[in-house]
Amino acid sequence: MMSVSVITYHLGMSRWEPNARGRLEQAALELFIERGFEQTTVAEIAQRAGLTERTFFRYFADKREVLFAGAGALQELLVRGVAQAPAAAAPLGAIAGALEAAAPLFAERGDYPRRRQAVIAANAELQERELIKLARLAAAMAGALRARGVPEPAASLAAEAGIAVFRVAFERWTAGDCLTDLAKLIRESLDELKAVTAGR
Amino acid sequence: MMSVSVITYHLGMSRWEPNARGRLEQAALELFIERGFEQTTVAEIAQRAGLTERTFFRYFADKREVLFAGAGALQELLVRGVAQAPAAAAPLGAIAGALEAAAPLFAERGDYPRRRQAVIAANAELQERELIKLARLAAAMAGALRARGVPEPAASLAAEAGIAVFRVAFERWTAGDCLTDLAKLIRESLDELKAVTAGR
Repeated sequence: MMSVSVITYHLGMSRWEPNARGRLEQAALELFIERGFEQTTVAEIAQRAGLTERTFFRYFADKREVLFAGAGALQELLVRGVAQAPAAAAPLGAIAGALEAAAPLFAERGDYPRRRQAVIAANAELQERELIKLARLAAAMAGALRARGVPEPAASLAAEAGIAVFRVAFERWTAGDCLTDLAKLIRESLDELKAVTAGR
Repeated sequence: MMSVSVITYHLGMSRWEPNARGRLEQAALELFIERGFEQTTVAEIAQRAGLTERTFFRYFADKREVLFAGAGALQELLVRGVAQAPAAAAPLGAIAGALEAAAPLFAERGDYPRRRQAVIAANAELQERELIKLARLAAAMAGALRARGVPEPAASLAAEAGIAVFRVAFERWTAGDCLTDLAKLIRESLDELKAVTAGR
């Protein structure tokens, strides 16, 4: 019978840990809240999760990226949402539909988004990283609109307005302990934008 | 008669150089274009401008900040523009008016904005710094709207939509060799945003 170490050698990885990624995310967030982002080390995160530093670096480039691990999946979801919007949908309608469809992704994570938001609000470097994430999401959605035949600058304006709508809705959602339906807040925020742009 | 060095000692600064700031900005931009941003040192910028490194650091914290030196003045101008908009102006009208009023600030700098834009487009770190600058401008304008009695989230949505409008207009302006009237491009971009948000 082969030993475990031989099997893991053949798999090209070290011992499998159930839900290592989720445990590291949870441990990191706890420590960032307890001690502050700056004061927390990767070694402490790994220890709190009951894992090794080596395991940590299999999932994340550094402690900051733990907070941004979901950005890739979110971007894919939003781009797909825009691409699959009804052919008759106007640019902002396609964006809004994609954002609403992504709302459950946040809601299903319980307390995590609200706590993550608090950590980011307390640190300038993290706020900058969050801005960059949002700008990338806007650029990706603008690209998805162009692929639907929406010309510039309508594509970029719709995507950036959509991200502003999402940001406002997300802030309200986390400020209200994530109790309201996020998709509903996105629709309300979109209506506010329409009211704001209609008046001059 | 006191020597120059005694006078400068008493003034607590070294020899006064006519338009040192402008010369450093011009030298930095030339070197960033010739050699790339990463490859340029502060020593080289100072030398090209015919000044000392010490003089450089009296004006700028580092080479990156040379490209963002105008952000403070722009922010003041935009905030004042929003504050001084007619009492009857709607939120986005106040923002758009402030942006249009700031347009000559760029136009009077000749080739500089277009060349600066090219340097920023070639470097990810500078693009991130530019994003942060724009986010700060949006936050400052949202604050100016709240001071006029505009509630949230209308204030933030109008300010962020305004920054998206400005970004699109500015990109078109620099792409077209800064020949078109920037204020006119801002109005066109605003009309595009209105068209995009009106349809769903």
